[in-house]
Amino acid sequence: MSRIIFGIHAVEQAVKAGEAVDKVWLQSDSNNKRLQKLQALLRQQKQLTVHSVSTEELNQLCSEKHQGVVAELVQAALKTERQLKADVNDWHEPLILVLDGLEDPRNLGACLRSAAAAGVTAVIISKNQSAPITATTHKTAAGAIAHLEIYQVSNMARALEIIKAAGVWVYGTDCSDNSTVIYQQSLTGSVALVMGNEGTGLRRLVKEKCDYLVYIPMSADWDSLNVAVATGVVLFEAVRQRN
Amino acid sequence: MSRIIFGIHAVEQAVKAGEAVDKVWLQSDSNNKRLQKLQALLRQQKQLTVHSVSTEELNQLCSEKHQGVVAELVQAALKTERQLKADVNDWHEPLILVLDGLEDPRNLGACLRSAAAAGVTAVIISKNQSAPITATTHKTAAGAIAHLEIYQVSNMARALEIIKAAGVWVYGTDCSDNSTVIYQQSLTGSVALVMGNEGTGLRRLVKEKCDYLVYIPMSADWDSLNVAVATGVVLFEAVRQRN
Repeated sequence: MSRIIFGIHAVEQAVKAGEAVDKVWLQSDSNNKRLQKLQALLRQQKQLTVHSVSTEELNQLCSEKHQGVVAELVQAALKTERQLKADVNDWHEPLILVLDGLEDPRNLGACLRSAAAAGVTAVIISKNQSAPITATTHKTAAGAIAHLEIYQVSNMARALEIIKAAGVWVYGTDCSDNSTVIYQQSLTGSVALVMGNEGTGLRRLVKEKCDYLVYIPMSADWDSLNVAVATGVVLFEAVRQRN
Repeated sequence: MSRIIFGIHAVEQAVKAGEAVDKVWLQSDSNNKRLQKLQALLRQQKQLTVHSVSTEELNQLCSEKHQGVVAELVQAALKTERQLKADVNDWHEPLILVLDGLEDPRNLGACLRSAAAAGVTAVIISKNQSAPITATTHKTAAGAIAHLEIYQVSNMARALEIIKAAGVWVYGTDCSDNSTVIYQQSLTGSVALVMGNEGTGLRRLVKEKCDYLVYIPMSADWDSLNVAVATGVVLFEAVRQRN
């Protein structure tokens, strides 16, 4: 899904906010100082393709008052809690990845890339606690986002209730005393794997909704994994068991 | 030889791990609680010189996102091929990670962090084909480098010969026709896992030295994983089997 935006201010704001701007068409023969300033900003964005075009070409792309610049944004078509409630009953033995409160857009992108490679049925992300899906997320996801069904929910505890009511077993990754080694859990059937924040882990209300808490056994000397790597390890342990 | 590291966690870990931190530059006007906690830790290190500086001075020292702290380390020398040849016979059923030709210092750091968490015996990296261990690598590794035995070799094919002669089985990750699913291989005993370049994978000469080629089974729609995630998945499959 993509969206066209236009006008110097709109494009500048989208780029500065880290939105997933994919392509920009810029008027080549303008003396407008603000447009030149925008051009300098765009040059710093390495993921961007900037096309220099004539005013006529810009007019064809966009019939509105574009001020010499038109941009295309990639937008993830995120689904809602309501859609999750409708869809979950149609899934046969789904593998669901739940990302609750990841802060880093790059980690989010890496997790989504792994989710697509693991062939998950769906991803559920929290709306307010998580990093937004920015240009960096898209870049790190390397195109994976288009292959995923992503549900964005404002109340994660309620979303977990919804999938549990449909028979999904919820496994939270956490290093509590009552956690078990992930390799000792059966991850076949209807399963959701929940990953928490990079620093603070699962939130209490989310943790309380989990049927089981699991952890990845690590070295006694060094027990710290990047959250995207941990997500990959957990997802592919499910893949291993389900194949 | 010295190297620069930055970021609160990286500096904290380096100090706690007893790395040869020589000087620290600390932002003088920060209210960040984590930074203040680090400052208290630094005060206890009597061998350290801590400079209070402005954000501008820090930015001049380090163009990356330094979080208010930059440190200079006396660089610990990586071990050599000669040392590998001497050490390999002392290892009992080692798990070795071989990184051949990773380009991105951030990926290298993430792989080293996973290697430490998986409790590997040693890491072998290629000298000329790989990203150097930069400040970014240290930050991404989050302190893990101090916990690892890292051998840097100029001829990876010869290094693989050395460990094979000591009875280590070498598994290259590769998607060739003659690769088998990693979950079907036994990764117990003396094992080396070889990861190639982010884009081009294993080099021919390195691939030819592998006893087995293995791959991570992925979705038919999307068969692409970040190399650091793939490294984590492969390492923890070995951990699973060896536990």
